[in-house]
Amino acid sequence: MSKIRIAICGYGNLGRGVESEITKTGDMDLVAVFTRRNPEDLKINSNTPVVNMADLEAWKDKIDVMIMCGGSATDLPKQVPEVAKLYNTVDSFDTHAKIPEHFETVNKSAEENKKTSIISGGWDPGMFSLMRLYASSILTSGKTYTFWGKGVSQGHSDAIRRIDGVKNAIQYTIPIDEAVESVRRGENPSLSTGEKHLRECFVVAEDGADKDRIENEIKTMPNYFSDYKTIVHFISEEELKRDHNKMPHGGFVIHSGETGNGNKQIIEYSLKLDSNPEFTASVLIALARANYRMNKMGLYGAKTIFDVAPAMLSEKTPEALRKELL
Amino acid sequence: MSKIRIAICGYGNLGRGVESEITKTGDMDLVAVFTRRNPEDLKINSNTPVVNMADLEAWKDKIDVMIMCGGSATDLPKQVPEVAKLYNTVDSFDTHAKIPEHFETVNKSAEENKKTSIISGGWDPGMFSLMRLYASSILTSGKTYTFWGKGVSQGHSDAIRRIDGVKNAIQYTIPIDEAVESVRRGENPSLSTGEKHLRECFVVAEDGADKDRIENEIKTMPNYFSDYKTIVHFISEEELKRDHNKMPHGGFVIHSGETGNGNKQIIEYSLKLDSNPEFTASVLIALARANYRMNKMGLYGAKTIFDVAPAMLSEKTPEALRKELL
Repeated sequence: MSKIRIAICGYGNLGRGVESEITKTGDMDLVAVFTRRNPEDLKINSNTPVVNMADLEAWKDKIDVMIMCGGSATDLPKQVPEVAKLYNTVDSFDTHAKIPEHFETVNKSAEENKKTSIISGGWDPGMFSLMRLYASSILTSGKTYTFWGKGVSQGHSDAIRRIDGVKNAIQYTIPIDEAVESVRRGENPSLSTGEKHLRECFVVAEDGADKDRIENEIKTMPNYFSDYKTIVHFISEEELKRDHNKMPHGGFVIHSGETGNGNKQIIEYSLKLDSNPEFTASVLIALARANYRMNKMGLYGAKTIFDVAPAMLSEKTPEALRKELL
Repeated sequence: MSKIRIAICGYGNLGRGVESEITKTGDMDLVAVFTRRNPEDLKINSNTPVVNMADLEAWKDKIDVMIMCGGSATDLPKQVPEVAKLYNTVDSFDTHAKIPEHFETVNKSAEENKKTSIISGGWDPGMFSLMRLYASSILTSGKTYTFWGKGVSQGHSDAIRRIDGVKNAIQYTIPIDEAVESVRRGENPSLSTGEKHLRECFVVAEDGADKDRIENEIKTMPNYFSDYKTIVHFISEEELKRDHNKMPHGGFVIHSGETGNGNKQIIEYSLKLDSNPEFTASVLIALARANYRMNKMGLYGAKTIFDVAPAMLSEKTPEALRKELL
């Protein structure tokens, strides 16, 4: 049986994750890495051909699914609707509020060209979304809580780096234990965002910078920090590089419902990830397998993980799945 | 829009659970309860018509999905292939080793009659199976562990009750904390069944019975107890009725994998259920909704939860799901 031919579009942390994790599958080959940069300037970790995005069309018959690895802010909203005219795509678009709009534009391109595009894969949106859907479909009267962390928030880290006198910084989002425990006990608390998470910041200040002012600017920053308990540590550049060079993340989806005469039923899903981009990449790879199969079945247009029958994600046959995993 | 017409076949704990939980949906009506008993002798908790199973065929045009609530040992293997000739069915067949055989016989009946039969729904098989599938499809190189409990095992309770001098008994399966914690830390231990679970038994002895002999017979019983750490408590019938009258259950599916250069990735799904049958019933109800939709789409034959696109389970529209849950 011939393998599914995968290409990566965009070579950042996520692209590198796909490149590394695809080697663990038995049914897929990585055939190309597309980049906006000059291909000769891009050093990658494998022997895969590197191609400029201008030559996208030339690979039309050599690629089954393109895994889009650009950013959600500007890359994906532009790239996916274009690429979906030529290729089946999988992306990790994660701007929750703009998902319906992204779905519509991608759907138009894909449907018109008989392509399949699975949007917003990963873990949130992605696996966490699935857990919210399953839990609320089963225990309809319950309440779902999502906690993120402990993990690095790129957006919050960037916001600190923009403050005058800050050389470098990293921010961890941390779920507040008491809130998690109350939800786990089925107490269905009402929790503001600031009651669910705290924010811990590790900041490298410029020489001679006013640390009190920096700490105050962080803690009072609207939207990002002012509504949260925020802890600020000043550390050296060496400490930052040594102790904070990983991209861990994770979190919990907890659904607390009731059945019958006051019987509590608690469903919890949690992820503890040493590498956020490598886990996201692993989800996208499984979705690429489903995408390939769904396209063969004539399921064209934009799809989400909600539309993917779970068996489609696995290398195993339906018979093996029933025998070994059911 | 007309509601999905549901019937229950078999009125035990599970049937009562379906009867109670279906009232929480907005898109389903319970239209009949089928029983092997004399309908006039069966007192049920709602005003639903009670019908003898001999009259199954007479309801052919009045029922969309039949939820099969009999036992896995003898009821379901016989009943489902018969009922699937006339109705779409959902069942909770849970004898893992016999699932492939059950699938084949049900598939034949359903396919020939353009019916859809979702087999082996619930939580294990069911939601736990799904979690094993998702996790192992994403982190292919990882290892999946399933722990059950704390919860009542009907089979083990029955085995104790068959011992001479035992009046009544209940057995709890309990995951061993150290084993769970080792798996959570990503240590991928090799664990025998006895290293994963212990068994706690609450036994009511007959007056004058030899408790030492009973305890010894329990602890040395092959398959059921001899491979486990087993704790036996003798209590009074009153204590049993007062303290052990619920049917709690639950457990964990933990998948521990690695990506990249030794990055640990841990996925955990857990259920903490006050009522095992009511939770199982809630899963079957969501599957009945999916069943109805899949049958309308022409997806005939036997299916499992692996074949059900998650969006099919929800009352919400695909648009609402993308906007609210993705």
